[in-house]
Amino acid sequence: MNTRAQDALDLSSDQLIGSALKVMKLSVDNRRGISDQPIVKITQPEVAQKFARLARPQHHPIPIDTVLENAREVFDHRIRMDHPRFFGFIPSPASDWSWLGEVLNTAFNTHAGSWLQSSGPSAIEQSLISWMACDLLGFPPTAGGCFVSGGSMANLSALMVARDQKLDFEERTRAVIYTSDQTHSSIVKGLRILGFHDRQVAKIECDQHFRMNTAMLRLRIEHDRRSGKKPFLVVGSCGTTNTGSVDPLDELAAIAQKEDLWLHVDGAYGASAALSKSRKSLIKHVGLCDSISWDAHKWLFQTYGCGMVLVRDRKLLMDSFRTGAEYTQDAPDGPEEYPNFWNYTQELTRPARAMKLWFSFQMLGLDAVQRGIEHAFELAETAQATLERLEHWQVLSPAQMGIICFRYQPPGLDEFALENLNKEISRIAIENNVAAALTTRLSGKLVIRICSMHPDLKNDEMMQIIKSLDHIAQAKLQK
Amino acid sequence: MNTRAQDALDLSSDQLIGSALKVMKLSVDNRRGISDQPIVKITQPEVAQKFARLARPQHHPIPIDTVLENAREVFDHRIRMDHPRFFGFIPSPASDWSWLGEVLNTAFNTHAGSWLQSSGPSAIEQSLISWMACDLLGFPPTAGGCFVSGGSMANLSALMVARDQKLDFEERTRAVIYTSDQTHSSIVKGLRILGFHDRQVAKIECDQHFRMNTAMLRLRIEHDRRSGKKPFLVVGSCGTTNTGSVDPLDELAAIAQKEDLWLHVDGAYGASAALSKSRKSLIKHVGLCDSISWDAHKWLFQTYGCGMVLVRDRKLLMDSFRTGAEYTQDAPDGPEEYPNFWNYTQELTRPARAMKLWFSFQMLGLDAVQRGIEHAFELAETAQATLERLEHWQVLSPAQMGIICFRYQPPGLDEFALENLNKEISRIAIENNVAAALTTRLSGKLVIRICSMHPDLKNDEMMQIIKSLDHIAQAKLQK
Repeated sequence: MNTRAQDALDLSSDQLIGSALKVMKLSVDNRRGISDQPIVKITQPEVAQKFARLARPQHHPIPIDTVLENAREVFDHRIRMDHPRFFGFIPSPASDWSWLGEVLNTAFNTHAGSWLQSSGPSAIEQSLISWMACDLLGFPPTAGGCFVSGGSMANLSALMVARDQKLDFEERTRAVIYTSDQTHSSIVKGLRILGFHDRQVAKIECDQHFRMNTAMLRLRIEHDRRSGKKPFLVVGSCGTTNTGSVDPLDELAAIAQKEDLWLHVDGAYGASAALSKSRKSLIKHVGLCDSISWDAHKWLFQTYGCGMVLVRDRKLLMDSFRTGAEYTQDAPDGPEEYPNFWNYTQELTRPARAMKLWFSFQMLGLDAVQRGIEHAFELAETAQATLERLEHWQVLSPAQMGIICFRYQPPGLDEFALENLNKEISRIAIENNVAAALTTRLSGKLVIRICSMHPDLKNDEMMQIIKSLDHIAQAKLQK
Repeated sequence: MNTRAQDALDLSSDQLIGSALKVMKLSVDNRRGISDQPIVKITQPEVAQKFARLARPQHHPIPIDTVLENAREVFDHRIRMDHPRFFGFIPSPASDWSWLGEVLNTAFNTHAGSWLQSSGPSAIEQSLISWMACDLLGFPPTAGGCFVSGGSMANLSALMVARDQKLDFEERTRAVIYTSDQTHSSIVKGLRILGFHDRQVAKIECDQHFRMNTAMLRLRIEHDRRSGKKPFLVVGSCGTTNTGSVDPLDELAAIAQKEDLWLHVDGAYGASAALSKSRKSLIKHVGLCDSISWDAHKWLFQTYGCGMVLVRDRKLLMDSFRTGAEYTQDAPDGPEEYPNFWNYTQELTRPARAMKLWFSFQMLGLDAVQRGIEHAFELAETAQATLERLEHWQVLSPAQMGIICFRYQPPGLDEFALENLNKEISRIAIENNVAAALTTRLSGKLVIRICSMHPDLKNDEMMQIIKSLDHIAQAKLQK
């Protein structure tokens, strides 16, 4: 009975160091070489079948060189969200420091649920969150929050607090939530999780700049009250995914105050503009909201998944998420400034996600982070300036917060032909590894969209990419 | 305008390799030295204040040696959940291979939300999940699921599917959920998130072995139906946190089928017994449930956070979690066997958590994993055998699934004195770094609890720990 399983499950120092160096080499080679790699690579069916077989564990260990080669091939089949020329969705131009911060974090494997379990990392998390909420966004000192896996979870957490603060249980079925038609899909998904019906969500139209039309919002609230419904929550966007637009947050805050609504803001990527001295005025009213979601794995150069939920009054998180059980009796709450973070969020067990952002900030310094954020603005502006000098390109949403939407619109083509043409331009640019600018729809029209966030992409490279899109467009048109 | 932010945010190959080696060294030193480190270390107030100052970023970079020394000190203040002598909660005896798998995973920084973005890692995830669900747990080929951050999220996901499959929207307020009094706290928390009121949860008593009393369950369902309520969900446990007990899952499945209830099983740590040939009969009925949660960061030797939600019919996940937006139109669903995982879960953005478990399985081989799991059973059995040879130690819940609860109970002490004595034994053992066996409550009585999962702890070391607890107890009693 006195078998030691250690030999099987763990390694000697020499073995560990040898293996770690191999893993490190593959990692570094990948990270250094990314600009020359395909931006988008999809698995073909026969390769997927090979991977499916590869996924099944064997009884005996496989030699590390084989496993690493297999891993390399598997990972090769992905979109490089951190490729300098990936412009789809919101990219994740993760810094090497975030990677190394996570290497460290995982090595220490902290359970960041309670003060007892992670007082060191929890003290960092608490203070970093406080700095971001108060110093950067302008929340009062009562503000707080915690790290979560990403924007979807952050939105869910905040919406839960809104529900629990603003509604009696019996009021929930007649409650109404106000979003815009540009609000991120995770909001409706979060509301569905929280028990609301899709028909309880009022999608308010946007103005021509893709910002919520507040006159329409006022009318709709009035109408809902007259119908016996219970308005309780308005969701603003600080940087929509489609266009980077920022809702008129000051007006939303005024309406929310007057109508006793919770104001949640989705700042998943846009909140990072707060770190730029020259651009932060674009989101200056963000501190007026009751809660906000903010992803560090987007515009703060972190690897996945690293998001935050911030609440104007952090104590409200505990009303919704307080956790207790017999088996946690030895991990009581610390004093108010040192919370058990499992009382702030859905997760009981949680990695110390704050530590990699902390590590990155320490290694980069804020000036570099600021330059990186401002560079994203400039890249989209460069794209716009270049497009405006070319023929037949129409900008449907100008560069803002690093996002621009446009399409190629030569005369004589109907809408159907235009859609196909622009889809083809996007497809061919990906196929030729020029850039991955995916498509979306604005006011019903298919457009090409660039979200440019990568610090490694030069402005003249962006000019060149736009010119390449133009060549692709012209060549396609001539066929 | 043609500034390149690269110099600030990224590193040359040489710089990166040099920094990576330093990070690696600190990581390896920590992982190799863990047995000699304090199991539990809590931050004192003045140190917490120092960390709070340290958390705030500066404008300029800090030298890496300083940052790494600060990081070491911060991480030092934690419970080492992967210390061989940590027995609290459910430990996380993470393998070095899981750490290295995560090093790789973070380096490649995959967005595992859609097939377009991560077809390679998604193919691995799909196949690994299928193997675990069907080959290990005995689900039919329709089964599937995905990786999530941990048990709380897995439970939330499964409960959401149960709600959406079994209830019309209008039925929700009169719905009833059945748990036992030993069910994990994340279940009630998840139900609260999903919009249910705590009073809708019926906590069924357990029998003397801490398993749900199915006769009581039947009575309660009948009573609820007569009162016009809508029973729809029963939650079984496959390894409770307190005692490791496994509910009579075959009986629960029969009741669920007869009553048209969804049967969810919390297998966060217990499901891993399926990998042990000699012990898997303990959980043989687990494949009868409709859904199950399972954490790889517990008894599958992974770092945080790595959990799974598995559902008997994977298509049902999509009824609850399907996601769509204009800006995801270029990432359509793959064929049914290649899902967009954002349609299976709350998260839109998600790291490729499957890849570190895959990497670990490849490097360890299943035989070693099996030995590691069986060793946990043996450690708790060794603790029990040792306790039974000592005077005044009472086992309140015998060794099962690697967990044992007991207390020191010399004659002549009242309940209050016994509680204090056992609390003190636990406290002193932690203070002296003998072991961290925290306390819990069973049937109202305070007990010391050991959850022993670490492959590095030898059986004779466990014997020695129990004897040390006995010495502490005797010394304390004599005072």
